[in-house]
Amino acid sequence: MCNTDCMARNIRFLLLPALVFLNQALPAWAAPTMGEVLAASKPSDWRPLDPADTLYVELPTGRIIIELKAGFAPLHVANIKTLVRARYFDGLPVLRVQENYVAQWGDPENRHPIPSGVGKIAPEFDSPLPPHMAFTRLPDGDVYAPEVGFSDGVPVARSAKLHLTWLAHCYGMVGVGRDLDVESGSGAEMYVVIGHAPRHLDRNVALVGRVVKGMELLSSLPRGSMEMGFYAKNETPLPINSIRLEADVPPLERTPLEVLRTDTPTFAALIESRRNRPEEFFKVKAERIELCNVPIPVRPRK
Amino acid sequence: MCNTDCMARNIRFLLLPALVFLNQALPAWAAPTMGEVLAASKPSDWRPLDPADTLYVELPTGRIIIELKAGFAPLHVANIKTLVRARYFDGLPVLRVQENYVAQWGDPENRHPIPSGVGKIAPEFDSPLPPHMAFTRLPDGDVYAPEVGFSDGVPVARSAKLHLTWLAHCYGMVGVGRDLDVESGSGAEMYVVIGHAPRHLDRNVALVGRVVKGMELLSSLPRGSMEMGFYAKNETPLPINSIRLEADVPPLERTPLEVLRTDTPTFAALIESRRNRPEEFFKVKAERIELCNVPIPVRPRK
Repeated sequence: MCNTDCMARNIRFLLLPALVFLNQALPAWAAPTMGEVLAASKPSDWRPLDPADTLYVELPTGRIIIELKAGFAPLHVANIKTLVRARYFDGLPVLRVQENYVAQWGDPENRHPIPSGVGKIAPEFDSPLPPHMAFTRLPDGDVYAPEVGFSDGVPVARSAKLHLTWLAHCYGMVGVGRDLDVESGSGAEMYVVIGHAPRHLDRNVALVGRVVKGMELLSSLPRGSMEMGFYAKNETPLPINSIRLEADVPPLERTPLEVLRTDTPTFAALIESRRNRPEEFFKVKAERIELCNVPIPVRPRK
Repeated sequence: MCNTDCMARNIRFLLLPALVFLNQALPAWAAPTMGEVLAASKPSDWRPLDPADTLYVELPTGRIIIELKAGFAPLHVANIKTLVRARYFDGLPVLRVQENYVAQWGDPENRHPIPSGVGKIAPEFDSPLPPHMAFTRLPDGDVYAPEVGFSDGVPVARSAKLHLTWLAHCYGMVGVGRDLDVESGSGAEMYVVIGHAPRHLDRNVALVGRVVKGMELLSSLPRGSMEMGFYAKNETPLPINSIRLEADVPPLERTPLEVLRTDTPTFAALIESRRNRPEEFFKVKAERIELCNVPIPVRPRK
């Protein structure tokens, strides 16, 4: 880990525009850093978030933005949109924050009525492997799944043998809490991974999307002191002011973002730059990368 | 992820004393949960922390306890003890908290003199593989290293080909920041991993120990808004009141802890219970576990 002097150097290095400009002409020993890869990216390497699939979670401390991935869990995402449009979540607390695990919100005291149309749904914990699936495969394997990589901007695992694909529980992924019954996850309780990837949850719960902005508002919440991170009576859970679909927010109040496409040569170059770490600091290059260590860059829409 | 109803069930389940009592007699389909494994542990499965290798980091919000592992980085640990005994860290800030990465303290403004005896030391980023090393090997492989497991209570990687072993950058591991020069990490800047395991740092910095209590005091700190999580002028870093060796703290002010030994059948059973998750909630058992997902239990000394 860089100490303070080293960081000052690195910041200067990252800002060196000549290296970015010369990206294509760099010799092999000077493979581009991630910063250089991004600086050299084209506008078409980025895709805007779709306002119809983007949630704004408004906390007293700021806005969290979630990209929903309806392709992996259409019924759950539909339920969540119904709940959001009924303002079901507004005023509910972030009811538990468990160290190195998850932050979760919901309505354990049943204060808010569940809107009609939201009920039991099929599990959607994994899906049949489609015949044609955009998939940027990682070359270094995975402890939990036969194959891992990225599809449509999210970390994905697959098994050709099982003919299945599923979203992976990486940091920042958003899921739907359920009871022991696999059909009991309506969408009325949602959680976000705030710790080391709990991949044992893969294929056991429905993941519905990824936090693309504002993770630090959840990860820095005080942990609840009770079992599983629930707050004790003398601890005050943070209330959620509201959750809205971006499409329902007036344009001037939106935070337009774009995400690096994961089916581009630029993203492939980013993976390589993270596998090999050209920065001088790294004396031993891992030459490998694990799924949840690959950043998926997000920036203000240009 | 369990929703609230499910958690109520699980808490009841965990507390069911009959299951613990019957542990030895349970049929195969009812393999013990981690809670049951721990409840059935013997006193000899646990080892006390050594006060001479235990740091108390006193923050205004509470005490963080670090177990130093001098066996893996003797020179760095010696430097840290010299710095601690000179009260070098007292009053210094947690100067950066970077989202999903590290919290780090040190003295970038050189306010405190470095005590004599603390200077450049050999890197200690990895060590020769000893001929006899207590090592509980994980069976499911690793993306970054040929072999991983636990040695003396910490996550370890090894390579028989390289004849090397090294500590792994899992959540809660403590390292020493350095400049580009590999000999520049004196111990005067320390960091703690607060996010998904940044294993690319393995073999590039000296890890010196593990946080065994109080991680939530670091992980819930507000992130600095500047590059690399440094705090801006209008943000107030948390000051460290003091860092002390447990041996130098009066007995009545100590927090005596013990750690589950990682060279015991109980720890092997814990690993199995985490690989296979006997809890009813898990419909698809991972049957695998990744190094940084294995908990190393700590409890008040009995």
